[in-house]
Amino acid sequence: EIVLDTTIPMIIGYISKVGDKLYNSLAVCCEGEKIYQYDKILLPNYDVFDEKRYFSNGKDLGIWNMDYKGKKINIGLQICEDLWDERYKKNISEKQKMSGAELIINISASPYHRLRFHDRLKQVKKTVRNINIPFFYCNMVGAQDELIFDGQSFAVSDKGDLIGVAKDFEEDILDVDLNNNNVIINKKRDELDELYNALVLGVKDYFIKTGHKEAVLGLSGGIDSALVACIATDALGPGNIHGISMPSIYSSESSKVDAKELADNLKINYLSLSIEKIVSGFMESLTEVFKNTKKNVAEENIQARIRGSILMALANKFNWLVLSTGNKTELALGYCTLYGDMNGGLSVISDLSKTKVYELSNWINNHKGCITIPKNSIKKPPSAELAPEQVDPFDYSIVSPIVDAIVEDGKTIKHILEEGYDSRLVKSIYNRIRNNEYKRRQAAPGLRVSKKAFGIGRRMPIVNQYYIKKDSFEL
Amino acid sequence: EIVLDTTIPMIIGYISKVGDKLYNSLAVCCEGEKIYQYDKILLPNYDVFDEKRYFSNGKDLGIWNMDYKGKKINIGLQICEDLWDERYKKNISEKQKMSGAELIINISASPYHRLRFHDRLKQVKKTVRNINIPFFYCNMVGAQDELIFDGQSFAVSDKGDLIGVAKDFEEDILDVDLNNNNVIINKKRDELDELYNALVLGVKDYFIKTGHKEAVLGLSGGIDSALVACIATDALGPGNIHGISMPSIYSSESSKVDAKELADNLKINYLSLSIEKIVSGFMESLTEVFKNTKKNVAEENIQARIRGSILMALANKFNWLVLSTGNKTELALGYCTLYGDMNGGLSVISDLSKTKVYELSNWINNHKGCITIPKNSIKKPPSAELAPEQVDPFDYSIVSPIVDAIVEDGKTIKHILEEGYDSRLVKSIYNRIRNNEYKRRQAAPGLRVSKKAFGIGRRMPIVNQYYIKKDSFEL
Repeated sequence: EIVLDTTIPMIIGYISKVGDKLYNSLAVCCEGEKIYQYDKILLPNYDVFDEKRYFSNGKDLGIWNMDYKGKKINIGLQICEDLWDERYKKNISEKQKMSGAELIINISASPYHRLRFHDRLKQVKKTVRNINIPFFYCNMVGAQDELIFDGQSFAVSDKGDLIGVAKDFEEDILDVDLNNNNVIINKKRDELDELYNALVLGVKDYFIKTGHKEAVLGLSGGIDSALVACIATDALGPGNIHGISMPSIYSSESSKVDAKELADNLKINYLSLSIEKIVSGFMESLTEVFKNTKKNVAEENIQARIRGSILMALANKFNWLVLSTGNKTELALGYCTLYGDMNGGLSVISDLSKTKVYELSNWINNHKGCITIPKNSIKKPPSAELAPEQVDPFDYSIVSPIVDAIVEDGKTIKHILEEGYDSRLVKSIYNRIRNNEYKRRQAAPGLRVSKKAFGIGRRMPIVNQYYIKKDSFEL
Repeated sequence: EIVLDTTIPMIIGYISKVGDKLYNSLAVCCEGEKIYQYDKILLPNYDVFDEKRYFSNGKDLGIWNMDYKGKKINIGLQICEDLWDERYKKNISEKQKMSGAELIINISASPYHRLRFHDRLKQVKKTVRNINIPFFYCNMVGAQDELIFDGQSFAVSDKGDLIGVAKDFEEDILDVDLNNNNVIINKKRDELDELYNALVLGVKDYFIKTGHKEAVLGLSGGIDSALVACIATDALGPGNIHGISMPSIYSSESSKVDAKELADNLKINYLSLSIEKIVSGFMESLTEVFKNTKKNVAEENIQARIRGSILMALANKFNWLVLSTGNKTELALGYCTLYGDMNGGLSVISDLSKTKVYELSNWINNHKGCITIPKNSIKKPPSAELAPEQVDPFDYSIVSPIVDAIVEDGKTIKHILEEGYDSRLVKSIYNRIRNNEYKRRQAAPGLRVSKKAFGIGRRMPIVNQYYIKKDSFEL
């Protein structure tokens, strides 16, 4: 259908089939016809990529001989991973140059993570320094499940200069003039600005593509739910956001005030529903069987699960979608309630460490020109408020970087200890991450913004015995 | 550590590392030393297998020259997939024979699914017919997360005859005499017997390996929970099973009676906890916001989520593990409540179609020599009992095979319609399977017993648009 409508040459990614083999392919289409096909040679099969499960490697270099104003031009065509040829010890770009390519066009579906644009630019510049022909890097924009594609297509001249960058996080058409050297490139967003916009797009597209309009989330008065409410409001509009405060006897007065203040600041719908009667209903049912037992996590989780069930009831009633508000540090440590606060169709900040949550929240307040997230939500000690006087049993400024070092950087315990952290703490964090795999297995899909998120790109068994021995750095 | 303890030659599977490459390897160890290493050549990367993500392909054929009573014997060594060389167009066994192998030993971690033993035996016999040397196939036994390894190691003579089979679902030592042709092979279990024992092992090992002893599950009086209770009882012992009946106003009298009767038959712990007060607590909290709305799935799910939360509260309090009791047909159609009856650390029968649930339940009653699962649980119309006079809106005898055809056999809509099924029904089932991916993404890990289970071996996006057009068989 698309091919029939083409006039000028268009390059379209698609899946092609030859016999029982599938290829990740592109078609060059023009004037209603497919005039060239290229099958992706390098297939990534790590992290979130599973291409070897489905596709066969293309065999032939993509060199499309284009008619341009009566002149022939050879264009080297690549798909995504073909650019990153070093890890495969294949010189695809170089071979294309040697086969006569005068320009390379790479179409990519490269998911966003922190500083990813710089990686791509660096890789293209390095390639161009070697082959001295212009390189157009065209990237997908839009989100799908956990992945956010940030766009930011760009062009590099044969001299290795950046001569054009398309918009980030929205569709764009970029005109590039290879003969004009005086190109002004718009200033890139700073890192937090980019991160924020990535998350906004992630939420927006999940809703559009699953056919939802309105979101519901619990507002605890804490920083995590406040941050998620901001992102969701920018993604869907304040009228489509329903913030629900669900205080219990352990909720501080300030938490209720903070939740309300946030909702007022964002102009989202706000509702306060008491859970106390439901808590006592549960406790009454369980009186007999809980008799003579000590209070433990069971009683705490009942509250979290009531809140999760209320959010789901609202979602079921009004066709809203529940946003889960847990952060990556909590999820790593298992400091979250399965079927409680983990409930949701989408987990918005599950790939942000608690440190990042603070940074981004402060950025919002500075960026918007007025306080959006109540100051108190940012400065008070984090608490789940599921028991009297409870505060989170972690110093996040220490714990959060250790979790990142283990999960994102894949550092060994030995390396982390060399950085001066306390041995007992590091080992206990490591074991907590290992022990809580079962919770994450049932977590909502979460937007990926780091180079290693929990989710489809990190596959760990639940049954595992690779805990750390008490007096050993070895697994 | 293991190598140091070896006396007679032992073959041990392990992961080896050379530079930055990992291999799926085996070591032959003898008298405290590693005397031979082989790296797996063929790496499966489909269904539940992800080996290309982690391992590099071995390069060299495994031919170990063994000293045996002063004589040298060449033994061809293989790891699992190496036997299944046809799909890779490599003739590993044949090349081993040509390189002098006089016997082949294949060590496998081949997960159980229906009739899998026959596939393996067929493949080995076919290989032996070609190379005319004896073949020892040694398979892992035990379960890990979703996978159940069934053991059933076996030996085939150079004539292609089965000359020994080890026990299924437990560790075993099998002596094989290649010079004795009069071998008596124990009768294989029938299919349902095998299936039942696979599930029992799956539950047993999940508990042992995650450090749990006791299981808790909801007893609805229906067939699914009854079947799971039987399996769990055989896996863990009746004293370790806690069956909880949680009637509501919609629960029929017979459901309560059936649940109690099952618990009595199995001699498991039984507890009845009312959820009515909790339901009214929820309804009271939601009165205002639900005002002027029609009753819908929201009210029904509240009940399921209360039950799920009670089971979790008991599990949290007493360190029990919740067993989820949903079947594959329900899970496919999304006829289940996320954070409700889907709750659990392990889903026991989530890879059994409703048809198989009936077959296996009847098998249990016939096999045990007395009625274990109440007759009424088997014969009454299935119902979630979440609304007045509710029965499941499916004729499972028709719907269940259609689901299997789509999910397990990967049949196209066109093929299924050619078998005479109603077009509207088939399309609606297809779309339901597609639409409910989001629920399954958050489902408990489920024991795999078919050739295509929901879970790690079936990766589908949540955001997808490949529904069936109304008047088309195409996607």
